[in-house]
Formats: sequence, C-alpha cells, structure tokens
Amino acid sequence: MGEFASSALILAAAAAAVAFAAFLWRAVAAISLDSPKYRTLSASDLGDPENGSGVSPLEASFGKLRTIYADIQAGARAFLKAEYIMCTAFLAAFGAFLFVLVSRLESGWDYKVGFLTALSFVVGGVTSMVAGYLGMMVAVFANARTTICCLERPESRAWTASFNTAFRAGGVMGYALTGVGILTLYALITVYAQIFDVSMGTEQALLLFECVAGFGLGGSSIALFGRVGGGIYTKAADVGADLAGKVCAGIPEDDPRNPATIADNVGDNVGDVAGMGSDLFGSLGEATCAALVIAAQSQDLVGAGWNAILFPLSVTAVGIFCSLAVSFVATDLMPVRREADVERVLKTQLFLSTAAMTAAVYPVTLFLPANLYMGSEGTFANMCATPEAVAASSDCVANAPLAAFACVAAGLWGGCLIGFITEYYTSHSYRPVREVAASTETGAATNIIYGLALGYKSTIVPVGVLASVIYVATRYFSMYGVALAALGMLGTLPTCLSIDVYGPVCDNAGGIAEMSELPESVRDKTDALDAAGNTTAAIGKGFAIGSAALVSLALTAAFVTRTGVLSGGVNMLAPTVFASLLVGSMLPYWFSALTMKSVGLAAMEMVKEVKRQFDTIPGLLEGTPGHGPPDHARCIKISTDASLREMVAPGLLVILSPIVTGTLFGVQSVAGLLAGGLLSGVQLAISASNTGGAWDNAKKYVEKGCLLVGGVVQRKGGECHKAAVVGDTVGDPLKDTSGPALNILMKLMAIVSLVMCDFFMGINEGRGFFNVGAPN
Amino acid sequence: MGEFASSALILAAAAAAVAFAAFLWRAVAAISLDSPKYRTLSASDLGDPENGSGVSPLEASFGKLRTIYADIQAGARAFLKAEYIMCTAFLAAFGAFLFVLVSRLESGWDYKVGFLTALSFVVGGVTSMVAGYLGMMVAVFANARTTICCLERPESRAWTASFNTAFRAGGVMGYALTGVGILTLYALITVYAQIFDVSMGTEQALLLFECVAGFGLGGSSIALFGRVGGGIYTKAADVGADLAGKVCAGIPEDDPRNPATIADNVGDNVGDVAGMGSDLFGSLGEATCAALVIAAQSQDLVGAGWNAILFPLSVTAVGIFCSLAVSFVATDLMPVRREADVERVLKTQLFLSTAAMTAAVYPVTLFLPANLYMGSEGTFANMCATPEAVAASSDCVANAPLAAFACVAAGLWGGCLIGFITEYYTSHSYRPVREVAASTETGAATNIIYGLALGYKSTIVPVGVLASVIYVATRYFSMYGVALAALGMLGTLPTCLSIDVYGPVCDNAGGIAEMSELPESVRDKTDALDAAGNTTAAIGKGFAIGSAALVSLALTAAFVTRTGVLSGGVNMLAPTVFASLLVGSMLPYWFSALTMKSVGLAAMEMVKEVKRQFDTIPGLLEGTPGHGPPDHARCIKISTDASLREMVAPGLLVILSPIVTGTLFGVQSVAGLLAGGLLSGVQLAISASNTGGAWDNAKKYVEKGCLLVGGVVQRKGGECHKAAVVGDTVGDPLKDTSGPALNILMKLMAIVSLVMCDFFMGINEGRGFFNVGAPN
Repeated sequence: MGEFASSALILAAAAAAVAFAAFLWRAVAAISLDSPKYRTLSASDLGDPENGSGVSPLEASFGKLRTIYADIQAGARAFLKAEYIMCTAFLAAFGAFLFVLVSRLESGWDYKVGFLTALSFVVGGVTSMVAGYLGMMVAVFANARTTICCLERPESRAWTASFNTAFRAGGVMGYALTGVGILTLYALITVYAQIFDVSMGTEQALLLFECVAGFGLGGSSIALFGRVGGGIYTKAADVGADLAGKVCAGIPEDDPRNPATIADNVGDNVGDVAGMGSDLFGSLGEATCAALVIAAQSQDLVGAGWNAILFPLSVTAVGIFCSLAVSFVATDLMPVRREADVERVLKTQLFLSTAAMTAAVYPVTLFLPANLYMGSEGTFANMCATPEAVAASSDCVANAPLAAFACVAAGLWGGCLIGFITEYYTSHSYRPVREVAASTETGAATNIIYGLALGYKSTIVPVGVLASVIYVATRYFSMYGVALAALGMLGTLPTCLSIDVYGPVCDNAGGIAEMSELPESVRDKTDALDAAGNTTAAIGKGFAIGSAALVSLALTAAFVTRTGVLSGGVNMLAPTVFASLLVGSMLPYWFSALTMKSVGLAAMEMVKEVKRQFDTIPGLLEGTPGHGPPDHARCIKISTDASLREMVAPGLLVILSPIVTGTLFGVQSVAGLLAGGLLSGVQLAISASNTGGAWDNAKKYVEKGCLLVGGVVQRKGGECHKAAVVGDTVGDPLKDTSGPALNILMKLMAIVSLVMCDFFMGINEGRGFFNVGAPN
Repeated sequence: MGEFASSALILAAAAAAVAFAAFLWRAVAAISLDSPKYRTLSASDLGDPENGSGVSPLEASFGKLRTIYADIQAGARAFLKAEYIMCTAFLAAFGAFLFVLVSRLESGWDYKVGFLTALSFVVGGVTSMVAGYLGMMVAVFANARTTICCLERPESRAWTASFNTAFRAGGVMGYALTGVGILTLYALITVYAQIFDVSMGTEQALLLFECVAGFGLGGSSIALFGRVGGGIYTKAADVGADLAGKVCAGIPEDDPRNPATIADNVGDNVGDVAGMGSDLFGSLGEATCAALVIAAQSQDLVGAGWNAILFPLSVTAVGIFCSLAVSFVATDLMPVRREADVERVLKTQLFLSTAAMTAAVYPVTLFLPANLYMGSEGTFANMCATPEAVAASSDCVANAPLAAFACVAAGLWGGCLIGFITEYYTSHSYRPVREVAASTETGAATNIIYGLALGYKSTIVPVGVLASVIYVATRYFSMYGVALAALGMLGTLPTCLSIDVYGPVCDNAGGIAEMSELPESVRDKTDALDAAGNTTAAIGKGFAIGSAALVSLALTAAFVTRTGVLSGGVNMLAPTVFASLLVGSMLPYWFSALTMKSVGLAAMEMVKEVKRQFDTIPGLLEGTPGHGPPDHARCIKISTDASLREMVAPGLLVILSPIVTGTLFGVQSVAGLLAGGLLSGVQLAISASNTGGAWDNAKKYVEKGCLLVGGVVQRKGGECHKAAVVGDTVGDPLKDTSGPALNILMKLMAIVSLVMCDFFMGINEGRGFFNVGAPN
C-alpha cells in the first residue's frame, strides 16, 4: 500500500464510525428500565386523571413491560441463533464449493485464488452477521426504552427523548455496519496486496480484486437469509397474528392474549433491522467490489496507485463523516418537540446528509488521475489521443475527477429523488393513497384494483431517474461510473440505516406500550413516532431498490468486462442472449411466487398454532383472570422454522440459476439472465413495495377517521375499514417479503456470476457445456 | 409476379376461407328465431313439468328473447359505429402523418414511398375493421340462436345443435378474417410490385415491403381500439353491473332489472370478439410484414423469386386449408352429444389443426431455395463457403426448407404447449385453481395473495417455451426464423378464432336464456357450453400473448436489421441501450396502471347511472309488474364513451413512446425500448391473464359447491364465496383489459418503429436529435 492519504481517510472514517456507534449505544443504555423517576409517576402526573387515585398506576405496567421486553429479546435471540447456525453452515459449505470451483481458472488450477476468494466470502458473511446481530440487539434493547421515554415530562421533552432513543439506536447499526464494513474490506485488500503485486499491472490487480469480490458474495449471501428468511418470518407472524384474530373470533392484533404477538414484534426487527441491514451491507460490499474489479481492468487506473484504486472506499468514508457531522442536527440542534416535528426532522436529516456529501466528495475525486482509459487494452495516451476518440468511446475519460463527481452526485441525488417519489406514492398526505382509501367505498375489490394500479404507476419516475443516472454514469465513466453512482446512492448509508431502524424500534415501542397497558398518552406518542417511521421506511425501501439495481448493473458490467469474449459488447438479439433475457425477466416472477406462497403457508401454520393454544390453555381466549400465559416461544419457533425452511427454494433459485446457466449455456446467456432479472426485477420490486405501502397507509387513513363517504366519516370496524384491511393484508407480503427480496435476487445472481466467472470461462471458452452462443 | 405456385396457393386459400365463412354463416342463419317448432313446445316436452300446464310456456319467453336479442344487436352496432368513426378519423389523421414523415427518407423526400405506406396503412386498418364488424355481427346474430338450439329434442341433438351454432359463428370470423387478410396483403404486394421491381435486387424489395409494412401498422392500430377500448368497455360494463348490484341493495348481476346487463352482454362481444379478432389480425399482418421486410434484406432470398418471397403468406394459406379440413371433426364427425364432450371436442380441434398443419407445411417449405444467406451484404456462396462459416453465423442457413420447417413447427407446438399450460393454471380441474379456491377459507386477502402468486408462477413454463422457440428460430434461421415461428403459432388462427368467438357467443346465449326466463334446462346447457368456453378462452389468451411476443421480436429484429448502424448487433450495455431497456420495461406497468384505472373510473360512472335509473324509474328496483323499462341505451353509451375516452392516454403512450424516443435519442434507444417493453410485457401479460382467469374459475368452483371447509360444502353467498367474488372482480380488468392490451403495446410500438425507421435514420444518422448513442 503506497500512498497514505486514502488509507488515512478510510481508517479514520472506520474508527470514527465505530466510536460514534459506541457513543450512541451508551446514550441509549443510559436509560434505565427500572428508574424510579418514571415508575413512581402518578396518574395525574401523566394527565390521565381518570386512571385512578394519586398512587402510581405504573408499577404493574412496568412489570409487564419488562416481561414483554425480555420475551422479545429472547425471541430475537432464538431467531438469530437458528438463522446464524444455518448461515454458518451455508458459509462453510458454499465456501468449500467456491474454493474448488474458483480454483479452476481457464489456465488450470490455482488453489491460492480459490482459497482467498473463499476466505473473503467467509469474512464478508461473518462481518454481515456481526453487524446484523448488533443491529437486532440494539433495536430490541432500545424498544422498551423508547416507550419509557414517552413518560418524560414536560411533554416536549418526552418527544425529544423518545425520538432520540429510537434514532440513536438506529445510528448504532448504521455507523457500526458501515464502519466495520469498510474496515474489513480495507484489511482484506491490504493483506491480499501482499500476495498480488498491483504494481505489476492489471493482471495481478484483477486477481486481487476477484478474490476480494468474495466479500460481496459473502455479504449478499447473508442478506439472502436476512431479507428472504427475515421477510417470510416477519410476515408469517404478522399475517398469522392478524388472521388468527379473525378466525378465532375477534381477538385484536396486538392483544396480549394472542400468542403470536411477540413473534410479530420480533418479526418487525427481523425484517426491517436485520433484513434491511444485511441487504444494504451487501449492496455496499458489492458496489465496492464491482468498482474495484472494473477498475482493475484499467492500466491507467491501476498504474495511478492506491489512492486512485481505493477511491470507491474513500467515497464511503466521506459518507460516514458527512452523516456523522449532520446527525447532531436531528438529536440536538433541531430536536423533536412535538408530533409535527418528527417527519420533518427525519427528512431534513436525509436531505442534509445528501447535501453535505455532495460538497465533501469533490476533493476526494482528486485522488483519481486527470485522464483515464477504462478499457482493458491500452492507455489514455494511445487510445484517446484525439478529441474524436474521446467523444467516440465512453471508455475515454478526459476529466476523471469531474466525471467521478458527476457519477457520485447523480447517484446521491437520484436516490434522494427516488426516496421522495416513493413517499409521494405511499404517504396518505398525498392524493394517490387518498384515492386508494376512497376506493374502499365500493369494497375490497376496487381497493385492490386501485392499489395495484398505484403500484404500477409508481414505477414511472423512479425508473426514469434510474435510467438517467445509468445513462449519465455510463456515458461519462463507462461501467465504472455505474458502480460509483451506486456508491453515491449508498453514501448516506449511516443516515439511511438510522432512519430505517428507527421505524421498527418505534413500532415495537408502541406494541410494548399497548401490551403493558401503559396510559393512552404513551401509545399516542409511539403511534406518531411510528407513523413517521412508516413513511421514512418507504423512502428507505426506494433507496434499497434503486441502489440494488445500480449494484446489479455494475456487477453485470464487471462480469461482462471480465469475460473477454464479450469485449465487443453483448448483442441483445443474439440467439442465446435474447432467450436468456426472457428467462431472466421471468425469474423475479418465479421468485415472488415462491416467497408469497411461503408467507401464506407459514401464516396458516401460525393460525393453527394460535387456535390450538386457545383450545388447550384454559381461560386464555376468555381472558379470565389468572389464566395460563400464552406460549409465545412456540409461535416464535413456528415463524423461525418456517422462514428458514421456506427460504430454501427461493434461495436455491437465485444461486443456482446463474451457475446452471453459465455451466450449460455459457457467459453470454449469463449476461442475458442477469440483465433480464434486473430489468423486470426493478419494476416488480418498486410496484410491490409501493402498492403494499399505499394499502397500509390507506388503512391508517381510514382508521384516523379521515375518509368521508357521502359526508359520513368512516371508522375502524366499518365496511370501508374492512375493505382497507384486505388491501393491507395483501400488501404485507408484497411490501415486506417478495418486493424487497427481489433486491437480493438482482444482486446475488450478479455477484455469484462474477465470482464464478473464471469457472464459466473454463468450459468451452465460456460457451458452456452445450457449446452455444457464438459471439453474435 | 413470376411464379405461379405460391400465388395459386394463396389465392385458393383465401377463396376457400371466404367461401367457407359464407357457408358457415348460412348454416347459422338457417335457424329461425321464430320457428314454431320451439315456440310451441310444452313444459313437459322440456322435462320441466312443474313449470305449469301442457300449454307452451315459451311464448312469453320468446318475446323477451327477441327484444333482448335486438337490444344487444343495437348496442353492438352503437358501439361499433362510435368506435369506427373514431377509427376512421384516426386512420385518416395518422395516415396523413405517416405520409409526411415516411416520405422523408435518409436520402431526401420521396412522396411515393410515403403515399404507398399510408395507403397500406389505411387498407390494413379498413380490412381489420371489416373483419371485426363481421365477427361482431355474426356473434350477436348467433347468440340467441344458440340459446334456442338448446331446446332441440332429444337432449343429445340440443347439445350438438347449440354447440355447432356457436362454433360455426366463431368460424365465420375465423375464416373471413384470415382469408380477407391474406387476400388484401397479396393484392397490395401485387400492385406495389408493379412499382418496385424486385428483380432489380434487395433495395427495391426493401422499399416495396417497407411500404407494405404499413398494412401491419394499420391492422395493429385498429387492434389498439379493439383491445384497449374494447377491454375498457367490457370491464366497465361487467364491473359496473356487478358493483351496481352490490351498491343498490342486492340485484343479481344478470337480473333483467339491472340496466347495465345489456351493456355487459354487448361487452363480451366487444372484448372477446372484436378485441381478440383485431389483436390476432394485427399479429398475422405484422408477422407477415416482419418476415417480408427481413427477407427483403437477403440477396439470396429475393433472388430466388416470388415463390420464396411469398413463403410467409403460403404458411398462412396452408393453415387455412388445415383448419378447414379438420373443422368438420367438431361439427360432424365427432359431434358434441353431452356436457362432457364440449371441452374435449374443442381441445381435439386445436390439437388436430396443429398436427395437420405440421404435416402439411413441409412441402411448402420447398418454395425456399436450399441455401440462403440472410445478412444484408453478400450471398451464401461468398459468405458461407466453409462449414466453419456456416456454424459461426446464424445468417448462414444451409438447409433452408428444413430450417424453415423447424421454425414453423416450433411456433406451432410452442403455441399449443403454452395454451395447454395456461389451461392448467386457469381451469378448476387442476390443483392451482383449487388451491386458490381453498384459500378463500381465510378470506379475500389470502385469496388475492394466492391468486397473485399463481399468476407469477404461471409465467415459468410459457416463458421457458417462448425462450426455447426463440432460441431455435434465431439459431437456425436468424431473425427470419422468429417471424416464421410467429406465423407458425398463428397458423391455426381460423381454429383458434372459432374457439375464441365460441366463448362469448355461449356467454351471451346464457345471459339471454336467463333474462328471457327460459326453462332451467336451457340455462344449464348454456352454462356448460360457456364453462368450456372459459377454459378455451384462457388457451386463446395464451396463444395471443405468445404470438404477440414473437411478432414483437420479429418486428424489432426487422427494425434493427433495417437500421444499418446496428448491423454489428445491439450492445445491451451501451449507455443509451440499457437506459432505454429499463424505461421500456417500465412501459407495460405504466400502460397497465392507465388501463386498470380507466376500468375503475368507467365502472364508477356506470354504477352512478344505474343508481340514477333505480331512483328515477318508478317500480324498477322493486320489480313491480308493469314498471318502466330500464334505459339500456344510456348504459351502453356510458361504456362506449368511457372506453373511447379512456383509451386515448394509453394509446398515445404506445404510439408516442417509440416516436419520441427515436426522434430524440436515436435508433439504438428505440431498439432498447422495444426489447424492454417486450421482456417485461410478456411476463406481466401472462401473469395478469392467468391470475384473472384463475380467480374467475375459483369463484365458479365455489359456486358449483365443490369447495369443502372442515367437511362443510361452501355455497354461493357464503363467506368463502364472497371472498372468491372479490378475487373475480379484481381479476376482471387484469384478464380482460390490462393483460391482453399489453399484446398491443408490444406489437404496436415495434411496428410503429419499423415504419418510422427511415425517418429516425434521417436525424443525425439515427442518433436522434440529441445526437447520442454512438455504436458502443
């Protein structure tokens, strides 16, 4: 490692991120669950005079709160344990598989390459697991603390304290994940650089970064478990709890008698904390790896030394500093003091991070040399000698720092724009969701029709934005630009993750408040905090999908540039290519069918178990005093087992499709498969997420009593509400299981292909076992 | 026109088709609506002894029947008149637009080319209108006759007579449309061949067939009105009638008091007869035009003379003879004698047509020369001199007749397979639909989730089949093969259309039986006939989508080969290409959102009108004797107006997207747009159609009392049935509006691009106004 500047930046950022995560953790931990300050509050202190005498009514509630808190923590641990056993087994088995297959280079066997790739794979996987564990643990640690903070007096301090607790808990995961992520990546690169000497040229650099690419694959594999398994877990519990109430004669969803409620609360964390975290960790790892592999092809870039090579990590490092610098705005400079502040503060935070990063990233682009040729043969001096040559090829980058800045900025602001558009289509502050809510007047069917139409329509702008970002990036910095745009979009990751994790923490806080029968005023606050969280969660999903699309394209491009036969481009109308484009476009549908069916099946199992408990535990259904406790652990086990069992089929589909395609039909077909999966996956993911989000908020809109039909306010329990509930239930698996899981499909297929690239090339020179797919 | 053989074959087939259509029409017309033979039947004759005395109870019913029949006919005429006025205006305006734009060749202005293209466009449009008019008229002519035939005695003759009437009515449209289609195309080619001399080489041939391609555009434009407008019409009426019953206190859907019922019955014909017919007519025209344009690039093929050039028309001609030859199996050799026969006979018919055509098409392939080079520069002799050269390029076709046979057969059997897979996923004889029906146990939400998952899953095999067909076709006969495969799939068009039209005729027959209060035994028969029709309609939809995908690809290929800059292939990862692939993949979602919303809006309007009539026509709602008649005409007008108004936005989207893209961003972007639209359009169309079909049949399954929950039979009106009805209503716009309309999106965008190709090339040499999209 030659130059000092980029290394210093990356290490400083990683250290700052980890230190800040620890600082945030301490701030959350400072809140005691047993503080007499709250425990002894009297009812009149809480402005709830009807709640009884002057004696504190909270003693009993605090007891319940601690039990529920412990139950959720135990449930989360049980899930993570089961999941991580499976993950570990998978990492070991697939690591061994990789070791063998990747060792088989075109030129013969090279066990060093296989071993190092497998090692990166395991490191990536383990890092993702650690980050996920941390995130889950801090989330289930902060939930009850957020509830308690709602008891602070005066009112405005309660808002500040509870918001800050949840937001800081999110920050712990956000900073820890990002910091540990670039730190381990940097460490891997440093170690591998001792083995492959980059100063020897692109061949060594390529080997180095192909080995490092295993890191992305490891992260993405864990994301498969987190997103797909987690998605099935959370919705099996949610839909199961919901339907159980319906089938078993009117138990409300959050009723403490319902044995599935704890699983439901655990599920929020499993899906939105561990799942989202591992998804975005995977994106970060993959985007960085894609950038490094593409960069390694360029003699100019490799020749410019480590500062230039490590540029992708420097972008993330800048993002950490920017997010950190503006994070005090939300918690201290402009704290939340009332309900109306919450959403505004969260959005401001996102906007400020984006703006700060835009300004701060420019100096870092100067790590890149002025002129670059990104093709694999030749240099800028001989390939881009004339202005005509520069204009003719996007591989000639005449002002690399500016071009890199354009790509990163396009990604940054593209992500921001996609986020806000997503909000427009999923928040009930705007017309689209209100139209869906109004359509419940004529029943569930019209609600579904309008919701589906909304989801379809909501793809227009995000896809337009993505297309523009991709055009700008490829035009000005070839395929390297796409990876940079992805890193730009992920630049504000610490902030995004803080906001994402904030949501389920508040959701849990609300559930805990309800179940421990704390005063109404507490529940009102947690509801308001959660409502804002829903909106920002939609923004987060938009980000996740957009960045996944860019990452997937960058990886596909890395794969294509890596497989020499395709250097003339991939002719989409060649026989094997178009056929595989078509099959690739079908995969997201297949995958969605599997995951949606899984949720249905697991939910049915949950319903049966709840019914069994009501039938066998005396007094539980009737709620007679002193009845036996519901068996939460068993419900958690059902969700856990179902999620891990049901994710096998979609998981295999994602991993095996590119491997089988590449082995049988060659690399051209793989390129088609990846592009096809990306093209239809993006659309399906955006429409599924937004449709589900819109139905959810349409239901909330009706529940808030905002819907008028013929001048009459519609209420919870009425016909319109019933129709809205149908939409919400349909939307659950769409928005939290099949939709977001498509991110994994897009990225994982691509990184598997990239890592297996040399293996494919070894079979009939990349034409596969059937020897098909001549270049054109 | 040199050779005699192909001309003779085509003309003979056209003549046979038209004559046979006339023969079938006469057979249908032979049934009198006023025959005393039925009119005077006594109740006991009908096995309905409880229906009263020995005096004929049918006099009154016959009176009603004739009124309803006349109402439906008037409604159909009113719709067609309104639609055709709009179509005529469109043909005139867009024809003028084409005349100007197409005259602007790369080399300067050539008004001859513009005029001839516009002329073909108008001829194609008018032919489609004539065929559609004929089909609609015979369908609404045969519906009441089918009802009456159910009164034949003995029972087995009633089955034969009613089935034959409906099936023959379908045949009128099937044969007339196909026959007139190839006749006008042949005539156009003959006339234009006097202007462009094909014996002068490919340049003249290209000009000739580009002018002829306007025919496909004309047919497809009318299909836009038929499929999109028709789809909105039929579902606005259907959903409107359904919701009106719900909102207005429990009027059943087919109740004669409901003023929307006639519109609903007209709608069946508008959607499934005129819409489906114009869609498939468009496919036939476009597939033929695509084949001709691609063929015109090949020196070898053009040099081989008219027998070889006209091969695409000969394939269709063979199809006419084969369908005709086996059509007597259904009506005479193996007639329907009982309920169980219906579905078997229809499927046998399809299978026999496919088998006959496979055998018969081989001799015709000998019209092609033994060796062909399909590229635009060179001949087989100089480009494919060595076996290696032949193996390396799919443009070298070493045994053209055999390769052509393989392509046509792949299309034929691929279509058949897609049809039967579609049936598997949409008929309640198999597990998938039964699972959806069973999911109603836990309510509408699970029904929707399972239905959506079924639709997604149902894409797997059809897309796999399509990918295989495309691979085989492109591998063995380059892009010409794709056009041949499309023509193969459309080879059994007369049979397919007979079966398609059979469905709505039976559906109408049932509605008429219900509304004219004919005996239960009549309704039972029409229901059984209709049920089989539903299944076969699903098969027809599968065919339509599959062929649309092939046609769209063939047209895209024709466009790409035609625009010289892309001769090296279209690199899917080039900046403009990938961005436009992404935008293209989004268009089907946008389009679906528009059409689904349209149905919702139009249905709401219908509900309001029905409510108004119930409020203002005294006694109508209560059904007091002698109440004023419902105002059907007004409901028909609402559906008509809404359909024509609401189709403007999706229509413009389809037509303008490629024109704007090509004008601003050049031909590379257009190629991406077309491929993207095709890739995601196919998936969305298949899943939408099958989901809708499955919900429809799941509802029917519950209604038949086949669903048991905990050992208890579920009935109409129960909770399960209510949940099933929600699914059915959601499925209506999916399966009959947005799903099938995507066929038009895929094809029309492509043919518009093909016709405008020279215009695009005139702007910065095909790089568009912004001068973007360098070759790679």
